[in-house]
Amino acid sequence: MSLFVEKYGGTSVADAERINAVADNVAKSHQQGHQMVVVLSAMSGETNRLLALADQIHPDADAREVDMLVSTGEQVTIALLAMALHHRGIDARSYTGGQVNILTDNVYGKARIVDIDAQRIRTDLEQNRVVVVAGFQGVDNEGNITTLGRGGSDTTAVALAAALSADECKIYTDVDGVYTCDPRIEPNARRLDKITFEEMLELASSGAKVLQTRSVEFAGKYRVPLRVLSSFAPDQGTLITFEENSSMEQPLISGIAYSKDEAKLTIVGVPDEPGVASKILEPISAAHINIDMIVQNVGDDGTTDFTFTVPRADFETSRNILESIAKSLLAKEVRADINMAKVSVVGVGMRSHAGVATTMFKALAQEGINIILISTSEIKISVVIDDKYLELAIRSLHKAFQLDESGNDITGKKQQ
Amino acid sequence: MSLFVEKYGGTSVADAERINAVADNVAKSHQQGHQMVVVLSAMSGETNRLLALADQIHPDADAREVDMLVSTGEQVTIALLAMALHHRGIDARSYTGGQVNILTDNVYGKARIVDIDAQRIRTDLEQNRVVVVAGFQGVDNEGNITTLGRGGSDTTAVALAAALSADECKIYTDVDGVYTCDPRIEPNARRLDKITFEEMLELASSGAKVLQTRSVEFAGKYRVPLRVLSSFAPDQGTLITFEENSSMEQPLISGIAYSKDEAKLTIVGVPDEPGVASKILEPISAAHINIDMIVQNVGDDGTTDFTFTVPRADFETSRNILESIAKSLLAKEVRADINMAKVSVVGVGMRSHAGVATTMFKALAQEGINIILISTSEIKISVVIDDKYLELAIRSLHKAFQLDESGNDITGKKQQ
Repeated sequence: MSLFVEKYGGTSVADAERINAVADNVAKSHQQGHQMVVVLSAMSGETNRLLALADQIHPDADAREVDMLVSTGEQVTIALLAMALHHRGIDARSYTGGQVNILTDNVYGKARIVDIDAQRIRTDLEQNRVVVVAGFQGVDNEGNITTLGRGGSDTTAVALAAALSADECKIYTDVDGVYTCDPRIEPNARRLDKITFEEMLELASSGAKVLQTRSVEFAGKYRVPLRVLSSFAPDQGTLITFEENSSMEQPLISGIAYSKDEAKLTIVGVPDEPGVASKILEPISAAHINIDMIVQNVGDDGTTDFTFTVPRADFETSRNILESIAKSLLAKEVRADINMAKVSVVGVGMRSHAGVATTMFKALAQEGINIILISTSEIKISVVIDDKYLELAIRSLHKAFQLDESGNDITGKKQQ
Repeated sequence: MSLFVEKYGGTSVADAERINAVADNVAKSHQQGHQMVVVLSAMSGETNRLLALADQIHPDADAREVDMLVSTGEQVTIALLAMALHHRGIDARSYTGGQVNILTDNVYGKARIVDIDAQRIRTDLEQNRVVVVAGFQGVDNEGNITTLGRGGSDTTAVALAAALSADECKIYTDVDGVYTCDPRIEPNARRLDKITFEEMLELASSGAKVLQTRSVEFAGKYRVPLRVLSSFAPDQGTLITFEENSSMEQPLISGIAYSKDEAKLTIVGVPDEPGVASKILEPISAAHINIDMIVQNVGDDGTTDFTFTVPRADFETSRNILESIAKSLLAKEVRADINMAKVSVVGVGMRSHAGVATTMFKALAQEGINIILISTSEIKISVVIDDKYLELAIRSLHKAFQLDESGNDITGKKQQ
């Protein structure tokens, strides 16, 4: 007997038919003797419907009231799933986030979970009940309803799995697992059976959409085994695990992630003095703009060039701030380009094998793709390129690292 | 400065436009310096939409889950009204029933309020906030969401008014007050400026739809002054008061109520022995059927006839039960008629004036309407008649008691 926390997203509970399919899936596991906690999102489209209502009333509605409003979406689906389980002869109870003591801070719209008291859920599980919990929501310490922001239902599921020491947290979504890269770009993309937590975190933070960075971080922190599966055709999906495979068959690269949401800014000819970096970056950060990659080049003339990337939505604001910084620092000029993309290769195999960067740069060079910025971590290499080359870059890297072939000993050197 | 609790029903919050109209109305009172607590129903149609969803999943869904589901309807409207008030520069906060500690028993779908801890509302009011509370809902002592059943939002408003010792509880609805009788039947029906609590209770329990019996009872118990007004054209409406007007101008009759939901059953020729009434009525009550009027006639032959009325929906069940009772008691026969109606005249003036019954029976006799059952209370006379005479009976009584003329000294004797 295992204890599973299963999360189903909005498309998985879009209507009565889909909710019945979820109930069938849950019932099957329950009848196999497993203890089941189910976390649900709102029906797809419902949150937008509610936000449109709010928008008719107030163009910039108070975040507390928005949370009060949109949290009803999950409350509807949990009640309906509990009914569907009853109809299958299974004792089930639905709970809002507040009812199972999902305590958050009071940052409405993007609250963070502070604590969970899972005693009520444990009592229900002991009585052979299926527990159905509203995702995406909690309460602050004054009992106000809060929501967790994007990917919040995943976070609820992972947090409950951690609080209950669940054997596995299964994230049911509209894709059937984690792929070597986006199959819409590279049709030969292969689904991974397993991926390490570190790799998943790098992929998610590099643009892979299958899981939100935050829920992966949470799973990592509390060592919750995660599995991504499709609710439309449930099979084994992809397991995100803490065990690194140390055999020779460990692939060098597990996957390729990308982001088109990149813009580049360069301040040219800044006097190279101590503290200049913070003078440039601090005003940008103060405007709540998230700086991603940063590169500094020191020139021969005692000045330095400073290049960094920001999300495209923050491009104009960043440029304006940087122009005024350039004036005050007596810099030569500001260069800006909004049409940037980032491609990242990720794999724990990098730790023990050299040559990944060489393979990557050679593959891009062969296609005539110019690398504009590079950043590396222990298990990731990211490059910023002109976004018109993005698809070409992804396909050539997928081929260079032989990601469409499974389980071989693929090292960078063999590619050369 | 007064403290008002205002309740707006489903048609009053049906869309963004209507919600803005409610916000204007509330804002006006708030700007006049009054402390405002607003109780809302779900948007009209929303509860039915949710129940239809449930029905697709489970034809006889668990009451706890139905309450979890339908309680979202009010949560949506309170958030939207708070936003609309913010938009008018007014500080407002919305609360679910649970958040303001509306504690109920755990009879899902028709829970009763057990206690309210209004401290949180008081604190908000002291800070000049408008408090917006979800009607129709509460929580039991385990934190499960409950709903109060039909007219539940009225009850929430009255209960909050009682807990807060409000100066007045205003029930905004789609009619503009309490009338001498249903204006759809008698176009000369006149709106009452005032009516006593006792009269309102008798009218509501005799079929007048403007307020639910339960909320009037609650208001009576806690001596909350109630006012019924239209949210579409707010004016003075009708005040339900505890002060009886002792002047000569007190009308004999305040209003006429009716119900078409009546069916009649008679068990004929039952041996007239002690305990026979309970033998007949107990099995009916045990089937959760609400018996209204009861009449017993003792005949010359040592047997008795027993006649009572039940809601039409329970007619067949009641008849079947009564047939089997008739057999076991060796009664002569069972007679049954589903096409019954009840007409009631109500007025505190009856206490000090004789002749009301005479006026009533004479008016009906003049129209050839046969009275089948009669029941009286201190301030009410009800008769059961064939339902085809209902409209005629109402109009003739309205005329006989001169209800279309205001403020005159109308006694039964003058009618003769």
